[in-house]
Amino acid sequence: MATLHVLRFVWLAFTFISYLVPLAESDNYIVHMDITAMPKAFSDQHNWYLATLNSLSVDFSASSNLPTASSKLIYSYTHVIQGFSASLSPNELEALKSIPGYVSSTRDLLANVDTTHSYQFLGLNSNSGAWPVSNYGQDVIVGVVDTGVWPESESFNDEGITEIPSRWKGKCESGTQFNSSLCNKKLIGAQFFNKGLVARNPNITIKMNSARDTDGHGTHTSSTAAGNYVSNASYFGYAPGTAGGIAPRARVAVYKVLWDEGGYASDIIAGIDQAITDGVDVISLSLGFDGVELYEDPVAIATFAALERNIFVSTSAGNEGPSVGTLHNGIPWVLTVAAGTMDRELGAVLTLGNGNSVRGTSLYPGDSSLTQSPIVFTDKCDNQIELKKLENKIVVCEDKNNSISDQFFNVSSANVTGGIFISNSSDVEFFYQSSFPAIFMTPKEGEIIKDYIKSSTEPKAAMEFKKTFLGTTPAPSVASYSSRGPSFSCPFVLKPDILAPGVLVLASWSQISSVAQLKSQLLYGKFNIISGTSMACPHASGAGALLKGAHPEWSPAAIRSALMTTSDLTDNTLSPIKDIGLDFATASPLAMGTGHINPNKAVDPGLIYDATIEDYVNLLCALNFTAKQIQTITKSSTNNCSAPSLDLNYPSFIAFFNVKGSKSNSKTVIEFQRTVTNVGDEMSTYTATVTVMEGFQVSVTPEKLVFKEKNEKKFYKLSIEGPSMMKDIFVFGYLSWEDSGGKYVVRSPIVATRLQLD
Amino acid sequence: MATLHVLRFVWLAFTFISYLVPLAESDNYIVHMDITAMPKAFSDQHNWYLATLNSLSVDFSASSNLPTASSKLIYSYTHVIQGFSASLSPNELEALKSIPGYVSSTRDLLANVDTTHSYQFLGLNSNSGAWPVSNYGQDVIVGVVDTGVWPESESFNDEGITEIPSRWKGKCESGTQFNSSLCNKKLIGAQFFNKGLVARNPNITIKMNSARDTDGHGTHTSSTAAGNYVSNASYFGYAPGTAGGIAPRARVAVYKVLWDEGGYASDIIAGIDQAITDGVDVISLSLGFDGVELYEDPVAIATFAALERNIFVSTSAGNEGPSVGTLHNGIPWVLTVAAGTMDRELGAVLTLGNGNSVRGTSLYPGDSSLTQSPIVFTDKCDNQIELKKLENKIVVCEDKNNSISDQFFNVSSANVTGGIFISNSSDVEFFYQSSFPAIFMTPKEGEIIKDYIKSSTEPKAAMEFKKTFLGTTPAPSVASYSSRGPSFSCPFVLKPDILAPGVLVLASWSQISSVAQLKSQLLYGKFNIISGTSMACPHASGAGALLKGAHPEWSPAAIRSALMTTSDLTDNTLSPIKDIGLDFATASPLAMGTGHINPNKAVDPGLIYDATIEDYVNLLCALNFTAKQIQTITKSSTNNCSAPSLDLNYPSFIAFFNVKGSKSNSKTVIEFQRTVTNVGDEMSTYTATVTVMEGFQVSVTPEKLVFKEKNEKKFYKLSIEGPSMMKDIFVFGYLSWEDSGGKYVVRSPIVATRLQLD
Repeated sequence: MATLHVLRFVWLAFTFISYLVPLAESDNYIVHMDITAMPKAFSDQHNWYLATLNSLSVDFSASSNLPTASSKLIYSYTHVIQGFSASLSPNELEALKSIPGYVSSTRDLLANVDTTHSYQFLGLNSNSGAWPVSNYGQDVIVGVVDTGVWPESESFNDEGITEIPSRWKGKCESGTQFNSSLCNKKLIGAQFFNKGLVARNPNITIKMNSARDTDGHGTHTSSTAAGNYVSNASYFGYAPGTAGGIAPRARVAVYKVLWDEGGYASDIIAGIDQAITDGVDVISLSLGFDGVELYEDPVAIATFAALERNIFVSTSAGNEGPSVGTLHNGIPWVLTVAAGTMDRELGAVLTLGNGNSVRGTSLYPGDSSLTQSPIVFTDKCDNQIELKKLENKIVVCEDKNNSISDQFFNVSSANVTGGIFISNSSDVEFFYQSSFPAIFMTPKEGEIIKDYIKSSTEPKAAMEFKKTFLGTTPAPSVASYSSRGPSFSCPFVLKPDILAPGVLVLASWSQISSVAQLKSQLLYGKFNIISGTSMACPHASGAGALLKGAHPEWSPAAIRSALMTTSDLTDNTLSPIKDIGLDFATASPLAMGTGHINPNKAVDPGLIYDATIEDYVNLLCALNFTAKQIQTITKSSTNNCSAPSLDLNYPSFIAFFNVKGSKSNSKTVIEFQRTVTNVGDEMSTYTATVTVMEGFQVSVTPEKLVFKEKNEKKFYKLSIEGPSMMKDIFVFGYLSWEDSGGKYVVRSPIVATRLQLD
Repeated sequence: MATLHVLRFVWLAFTFISYLVPLAESDNYIVHMDITAMPKAFSDQHNWYLATLNSLSVDFSASSNLPTASSKLIYSYTHVIQGFSASLSPNELEALKSIPGYVSSTRDLLANVDTTHSYQFLGLNSNSGAWPVSNYGQDVIVGVVDTGVWPESESFNDEGITEIPSRWKGKCESGTQFNSSLCNKKLIGAQFFNKGLVARNPNITIKMNSARDTDGHGTHTSSTAAGNYVSNASYFGYAPGTAGGIAPRARVAVYKVLWDEGGYASDIIAGIDQAITDGVDVISLSLGFDGVELYEDPVAIATFAALERNIFVSTSAGNEGPSVGTLHNGIPWVLTVAAGTMDRELGAVLTLGNGNSVRGTSLYPGDSSLTQSPIVFTDKCDNQIELKKLENKIVVCEDKNNSISDQFFNVSSANVTGGIFISNSSDVEFFYQSSFPAIFMTPKEGEIIKDYIKSSTEPKAAMEFKKTFLGTTPAPSVASYSSRGPSFSCPFVLKPDILAPGVLVLASWSQISSVAQLKSQLLYGKFNIISGTSMACPHASGAGALLKGAHPEWSPAAIRSALMTTSDLTDNTLSPIKDIGLDFATASPLAMGTGHINPNKAVDPGLIYDATIEDYVNLLCALNFTAKQIQTITKSSTNNCSAPSLDLNYPSFIAFFNVKGSKSNSKTVIEFQRTVTNVGDEMSTYTATVTVMEGFQVSVTPEKLVFKEKNEKKFYKLSIEGPSMMKDIFVFGYLSWEDSGGKYVVRSPIVATRLQLD
């Protein structure tokens, strides 16, 4: 099951869930085949797959309404899978498994889908750094596999954009309310994929059978990654300014695979397959599948093919935090992105009768009233009858036992002047886009209001909305809901990789999907402000596009390494970045990877940790997968497993202690091997420093790396000695390679943990 | 030379400095005598001192205008000094030194002088904790030695206050514009001391020859320590609310020793002497003397006598930060208080033409205009001619090379709409009370404004003043100007001891001292908002009064220990408290001592570190002072120096490494011995934990302390092993004794430093 990574109206989320009803009889399967087993008689794979399906005669005879093989076939895949998807009965599936060339199959899965101040917050500017160096990503094509696009959005105007790169092989597909002329030099491709959805729900009517976005999510992520500049953007006055993507001159190709009616793995794989065929440079995937092994994970399988074509893939970590081990897309060959806040507060100012003001969060689209109303604190916000007594007052409610949703809905239907909701829960974000005057505050601010009400004989207050304060501290912090590592499917690679803005991001939206409600009226607009790792992912996709533009020769691993090792560990108070989900304790690498993305520094990282296809295969071999399972991912039947290794050449380290059976008072040493490539100055010397990790001894050999030329590689070992039985759940620190000139710091997080692997 | 610990209008500070002109001929001296040497013929010390002065006949004959001994005598002291102060010529001073009973003498010194949301910020409330437990300090008398008092201030109304404790021996002295009937059950004493000032400046006219405060400083500190509640307090609308002291029911006795005309040690000592005679329980001293040895320091000498009478003394650390070693009042037997911020922003909101808002600090007393003006950034704010071209605009100035004062004065005289001043300097605090519309911002906020101006074709902005935002983060932080340890006069005791609110504190004021200026008009008011360790000190004095009320039997060392070991290390983001003077790096114990004062926790500390007079004498003996120097402090000629020790039983640790002559690769071990007294639960077990100090090994023996009854004492050793030659200037950590029930954490800071002692 996959998930949409965005926190929005709960009712929308519920609507979506209703499509998850299982069908009893035949079902969709994604089938992996060994192309080397294809009989020579077939001219191409497609025909072989059709013939294979025809041969599954066992059920054909049993059926009164004989389907042809071509009606059973959903997609023949080219790059991401050697194989196809098809609608199969249980018996057909069984028959298929004995066909020569059959590798494996999985039932089709539903996906979980997981900006505008952000480019400033990331320090992008025209004078120096990633924007001018990469020519704003002009020659880079970003494929966004999502809910489609609102092509008329100003984010996709092609003003100032040069001709489409000649290598582009994609197309602008016509469909419902979508003419192929809607594409331009900015939005260079738009295609849609719903055969899997239709096969699964034969009687379904696709409301908008084209790449046009009826949800908004895909328009939001596309414009965040690579939207052009749009001046005078705002959400009902909130977050005003010039909107712009992270790579504002990069090209956008959208692949609509997520539908109001559901989003299936078979369609997602087809979209990624097409993006690879078309020649994209970057794929942005704000979706993921929970609890699947790598060889069952449509994203892992499809993106391995992208890796082979040197395509950089950025994905969202999921919104299941703050518990550890909640992350998806923990795939060794993609970038996995966590969500953080920005230095901006969107909301309201509550001015108390005594003249003090308190700020809170809100996206209420209505106007403020500066007149003061009586304000009252009540613990009866969950009681409609009690609320009746508080008409024409501002009602202050406090979250107890996670009752804030009930309280919010009760207050929304009461005839009150407004509501102040005090809660520490990240769930309140669902309600920011309130249809009545509501302000959301933390317990700290709540105390101030309660104190005032208690101390005042006639407490009053005024609510002012549509306030945007910049420069707030601390920022960034890790969002509570951002999913935490380690990775379920490959815990040996530390995930997530990096933190990017994902909270209250303004970007373009579909104009047929409401962005707010005022009383009972739905409101529409060009922009929406939403949150989630879905929003963080395209920031990293855009940053990847800038690096690709600056260094077209870099591998996906090199781009990822550059982003990771140059990221920021400190916030705008120069303190370590905090984790909101841990009551603002210092964020660990399991929450934010190496730190907050810094594209300007990433264009010149000094050293990179590269990785080849072989390295990933060696990792897969060491994961104790069967040959078929490995083949499902690599598409090759001849994977060389002579050098299995869990120790990928990755810019981070995770070491598992408390291995079963070890003695409690013994010591364990875990060793890692790494090779770094010099992409900085020709002659340079790097020295290792390691921060203290309490209870552990970390050593690096050698401690100095002397480079004489560019692209030279150097090898080092890092070893962690620690107790076989750890007390803490995890302990973390950082290894930094610093060059003698003080220009580069190449930093990697180190996590030692006793989290169990099963 | 002593200093006023308050950051205010620079011109006031300059006025004050002009009194420091030295006189050539005779001068005031404070003379310490050995009372055991007094011939039996004298009925009392006073007569002996007079006779002694009479005997200095050498100059009497030389003078045409023969002064009598009584005219030369300034004060006979009773408690704080065995001796007197007198105006002496150089020859008289020499003659005095050969008189039997003469101990030592020092020239008179000028003193450096160094709040209403704060009681809420400190969590004081009527339901639980220090207020109800101590009955709001009702039975405690706080002596404030300062610039006097504005007796009509509502902070000193005696509403709700019981009868004056019968042990009170003080008085309400009449004087210029001060009738003795002005005292009441709240303000129980008011006396003034200026004989030293007059003797030093014989032709001076004392403008206000009474305890009436013409400055405001003493009214501010008194009302902060123990002011009664005053509703509807504010400073021109800033910081509105109910004002109240930390011990709102404690009694106030004021001793005016600081004058518009100057503040001398001889008068200060006389004030403290009187306070001891009168029977105060707490002395609050927001003043100090820089660069004096303990045996020369009027505060150290006078407060030793307070110690002997069980009086708790709280002092200000000084405003000379952020450099290390700038602290004064680093006296082992007083509490030395550093200044921190509160969770409140006073100032203005600048709303940019694009709808974004930025907050800044300001105390401008005029009204806001909501209309937008053109806004312009210029690097010519130091150029009056260039500023002429910017009339009727909001001018944005940026601090370069500490030019912000020049810029401010230039802009103030230009005909501009307003000024935005971007600076990281703490000097800007001098200008908050601006007479024209001015907003002060940090570089972070400055960037936002500059970015907007750069990106806008027609930049505009509106300035809204008189805004008070509560709940701001992070708070507290250590103020940049707060003086840093170690102590000059006794580096072996870690100073400062504690952090208390000292930034932008609202409290009562003298109504004949202006609080603001609007254009050229001076404005007066009941309250003022000022900053400095002068403001932090009375918060701790008030907290000490609450502890004294809750535990009348506790020694001053016990009260100090309780305040220190229970203070908070974390701010309202639950991160370590930051140091503004270090760009918001984690504050060290040299900046904030044990942490931020928490009176509610201090009333029940679990364990205390007590100290006796003997302990302090042992410390003085170990400081290699001469017998006379020690006697100057202790007033006793028979100090037992058989057990000298630098290792005072103090709730903090400072270890000096890099001792001269030690080898660079050797190890040094420094050991401390401590005794803790159980004032918590009868049966209790405490376990030691020590945080990591990089490069050091800290061990505690024993690691567990098992108490069977109340007031039981237990001994432990703490040893720090480290390199003889440290690399860092200092490294710090914390020792915590935690009881097994989880109720108490008794925390002490540990500093290892290579700062040199000379």
